[in-house]
Amino acid sequence: MPNNFFETHKKLLQDALEAIQRCGYWSPFAEMPSPKAYGETANEDSKRAFEARLNKPFVLDQPGSAGQTGEEESPFGFPLAITYPKEDIDLLLPAVQKASEAWRKAGPEAWAGVAMEALVRLNRKSFEMAYAVMHTTGQAFMMAFQAGGPHAQDRGLEAVAYAWSEMSRIPQSVLWEKQQGKNEPLRMEKQYRVIPRGIGLVIGCCTFPTWNSYPGLFADLATGNAVIVKPHPGAILPLAITVEVIRQVLADGGFDPNVVTLVAHGKDEDVAQTLALRPEVKIIDFTGSSEHGEWLERYAGQAIVFTEKAGVNPVIIDSTNDFKGMIRNLAFSLSLYSAQMCTAPQNIYVPKSGIATPEGHLSFDQVASAIGQGIGKLLSDQARAVEILGAIQNETILRRIGEARSLGEVVIDSKPVEHPQFKDARIRTPLLLKADADDESKFMRELFGPIAFVIATADTNEAISMARRGAMEHGALTMSVYSADDRMLEQAREAAAEAGVALSCNLTGGVFVNQSAAYSDFHGTGANPAANSSLTDTAFVANRFRVAQSRAHA
Amino acid sequence: MPNNFFETHKKLLQDALEAIQRCGYWSPFAEMPSPKAYGETANEDSKRAFEARLNKPFVLDQPGSAGQTGEEESPFGFPLAITYPKEDIDLLLPAVQKASEAWRKAGPEAWAGVAMEALVRLNRKSFEMAYAVMHTTGQAFMMAFQAGGPHAQDRGLEAVAYAWSEMSRIPQSVLWEKQQGKNEPLRMEKQYRVIPRGIGLVIGCCTFPTWNSYPGLFADLATGNAVIVKPHPGAILPLAITVEVIRQVLADGGFDPNVVTLVAHGKDEDVAQTLALRPEVKIIDFTGSSEHGEWLERYAGQAIVFTEKAGVNPVIIDSTNDFKGMIRNLAFSLSLYSAQMCTAPQNIYVPKSGIATPEGHLSFDQVASAIGQGIGKLLSDQARAVEILGAIQNETILRRIGEARSLGEVVIDSKPVEHPQFKDARIRTPLLLKADADDESKFMRELFGPIAFVIATADTNEAISMARRGAMEHGALTMSVYSADDRMLEQAREAAAEAGVALSCNLTGGVFVNQSAAYSDFHGTGANPAANSSLTDTAFVANRFRVAQSRAHA
Repeated sequence: MPNNFFETHKKLLQDALEAIQRCGYWSPFAEMPSPKAYGETANEDSKRAFEARLNKPFVLDQPGSAGQTGEEESPFGFPLAITYPKEDIDLLLPAVQKASEAWRKAGPEAWAGVAMEALVRLNRKSFEMAYAVMHTTGQAFMMAFQAGGPHAQDRGLEAVAYAWSEMSRIPQSVLWEKQQGKNEPLRMEKQYRVIPRGIGLVIGCCTFPTWNSYPGLFADLATGNAVIVKPHPGAILPLAITVEVIRQVLADGGFDPNVVTLVAHGKDEDVAQTLALRPEVKIIDFTGSSEHGEWLERYAGQAIVFTEKAGVNPVIIDSTNDFKGMIRNLAFSLSLYSAQMCTAPQNIYVPKSGIATPEGHLSFDQVASAIGQGIGKLLSDQARAVEILGAIQNETILRRIGEARSLGEVVIDSKPVEHPQFKDARIRTPLLLKADADDESKFMRELFGPIAFVIATADTNEAISMARRGAMEHGALTMSVYSADDRMLEQAREAAAEAGVALSCNLTGGVFVNQSAAYSDFHGTGANPAANSSLTDTAFVANRFRVAQSRAHA
Repeated sequence: MPNNFFETHKKLLQDALEAIQRCGYWSPFAEMPSPKAYGETANEDSKRAFEARLNKPFVLDQPGSAGQTGEEESPFGFPLAITYPKEDIDLLLPAVQKASEAWRKAGPEAWAGVAMEALVRLNRKSFEMAYAVMHTTGQAFMMAFQAGGPHAQDRGLEAVAYAWSEMSRIPQSVLWEKQQGKNEPLRMEKQYRVIPRGIGLVIGCCTFPTWNSYPGLFADLATGNAVIVKPHPGAILPLAITVEVIRQVLADGGFDPNVVTLVAHGKDEDVAQTLALRPEVKIIDFTGSSEHGEWLERYAGQAIVFTEKAGVNPVIIDSTNDFKGMIRNLAFSLSLYSAQMCTAPQNIYVPKSGIATPEGHLSFDQVASAIGQGIGKLLSDQARAVEILGAIQNETILRRIGEARSLGEVVIDSKPVEHPQFKDARIRTPLLLKADADDESKFMRELFGPIAFVIATADTNEAISMARRGAMEHGALTMSVYSADDRMLEQAREAAAEAGVALSCNLTGGVFVNQSAAYSDFHGTGANPAANSSLTDTAFVANRFRVAQSRAHA
């Protein structure tokens, strides 16, 4: 008899539902890679499991396989040499359609149950996932563990909770009774059935393959859709492991595992486009470049399309009551994973006349230098530096750093850092440049990677105005403001609301603008060009299913 | 001091929220045009008010007016000769943008308050609206009153309730507290603000100008968007009155009335396309042809687009326990408002071997004849006939009836009916044709108007299969099945769920497949080509607003 995963995870769902209603902190998954939570030998076992995956084919018993593909390289300096089944789309899609038939009829409890069981099993594999994420994305181990494991699982569970919350609003049946004056009332029995859209396509990115894919993947799954997962050719392994786990759960639940499949491919193959235009694909979740995202929004008309694209995240520095805290916080945000985060700040606006601080008035140059020094200090210890910076995901980012040097006066230059363990790791410190508000062509575009500008503005009003306009025209997922003046904070809040961007005010402690907490922070608003949707809100899930009703006289 | 409409209508909102949760019957608006509900002199006063609108300009004090436009003609045989301000879009849009500034900041209570007050005032005007709807759409008075007035208001209020339900899920602020082992917990205060998308464009149709427009219009308004209402050139007056009422409510509430504006235009002017591509327009609600709807879905990429388009609604007759009831019910559905309803049946599938009934086995021809005779009987009394049929909205439909005669063997022909009061009224009885399942090119497309086919199928399985395929390929808003066999009903239910279409089973009494009840029936599923969304569900409202948040250390 198949497992009843829904029954098993009822309490988990209940807790997650409470969490999305409260919007406070919550997680069922331990975020520290502790032996207590994950088992005394979890790290060693998982490292071996990861190593055992290298230099061989990754076996996924999928239909339509035609050869092997895969050319991932660890940003820490070695090829993974793993190959994955190369799929013939024309053979795969009918198999997925066939698998969908029973799946679409299984109903919300089965869908949510499978999704939750998969997340729980993925959680147990968090150490292995950490190595997979680290050696594809270039994230340092701790971040790879957290963002690749429990935090991604949180985002997946959040999507399941939102999906459940909406599906459970739909009654299974009701008695509809309308009085007719002196005549007998009209009585109808109405039945409602949640029906999935069809096949969801999830297109992963190379920096956060799980964190950015799990919301769409688990939202699709929890609403009864089949899912084709198409990883970025640079970060296949984390999603291959994910698909492997979900396929096992499906099989254990009595379903055809082809409800969830992986379509891996090599560089420069347009598999995403081919899949995205197939009539069977009804939902697309995408994280990546604005160019590709906008293409999908424009041409994949048969599907509903959720995109997260490029943005230019601004920081507005007006004044501060804690200059050292501000510098520390900013330095960390600019260094963490070499700013290869969609939430990392890029443009730091500072009035050219300088700012008020507890240390007295500081000039524009003093502020710029202090940020540079803050980064220098944070990364002064090599062993610590590599754990913060991680590695540069790809050569394009490396080249971008080189080319960016000419865009302004260099405050601190980007330099290689040696990794004590991985001698060929691609590690660089951030490049910090000075620019003038007039030089918009240089900084008013996304320069993905460890490149940031300190920009001299006429005053804070201009800074706020540029931050707002930049977000509205070029997109932004985060905005940050530092001010000791409540009116300025309020002005920034208005600007952020107008530009549809999440604002962080006076972050000087252990919370960073880069971080977005599941169940509480809406990642992206869908209200500016950086994303057409939010992770995760009702709109993200409610259109992944529809309702078919039937009625008859009662 | 401005009115506090939200406070005034709190109870109404509460009731509507309960109604959308229950999905049972409910309405706060009297659906019968009774003097008791609407006032002893309501009919006479409203008739005079309607007549006073004729033959003169309709005054709406909108910016950007450049001349007058309007060429509506009553399908009951006289020109309305009303003109409306012709808008210069380039002058209007900046005024709408300006009006939006305070409106977008007013917040959910103000938005929902204005929307509800407008609906309540529109309800008081239901008699006047009835005359306006009757003499633009051709609906007979009773339907014009109900569908144009209280039922449309119900759909509007339903949209407000769904919008409120989603907006009120978003907390205004929360304390987010994360334990840090032995260290002080991280504490953040997070504020959330509902922000509207911008300007909504509502494109009306000529048959149900209010019923089909109110969901989008009031969903936009209740989520803080400004709304430009673009009526069909054949049915401007009902939406002009609507806009007039809402503008007054806005002014009374202390808002710039340009939050809601009317853009009327003459035939063959592509005002809808021009508006739809403007970057300021972020939401579009459309009812009309598949051609126009698909154009919007494809090209209005800057907006989220909700469409209701053409469809081919099937009836499957397998067998029945109440032949007379079935015939009566079908005859009414085929005749009501001359089947100028997106929900009216068109293709009636009957096994060529005939069906089992309490009257014994009846051949295919007998069933077809009985439907024809049922229509004849229903419309035998001229005075009653005109109150059921209403008038043909436009000449195109009239021509279509003429051309359709050659598509099959005529069971009953379409004939003119004289109206006792309006001698030039364009009134026709339905045309019923026989066709063979092989003749798909004749009937597998929407023939909008009083044209229906009785189609001979190999058996009920083929009937179900054709109904399903027709809905999947050409769209359908309704499907109807008659069967005394529970297994057949179940099979029809599966087919309907697969095709994403609302099913009615064995309607033999006072409920008709054409009818869709607010708060209980989802009109359209968004799961087949007849519509990309549903009136009204969560997905219909949740993406009309976004959430901007800000956070700071607590």
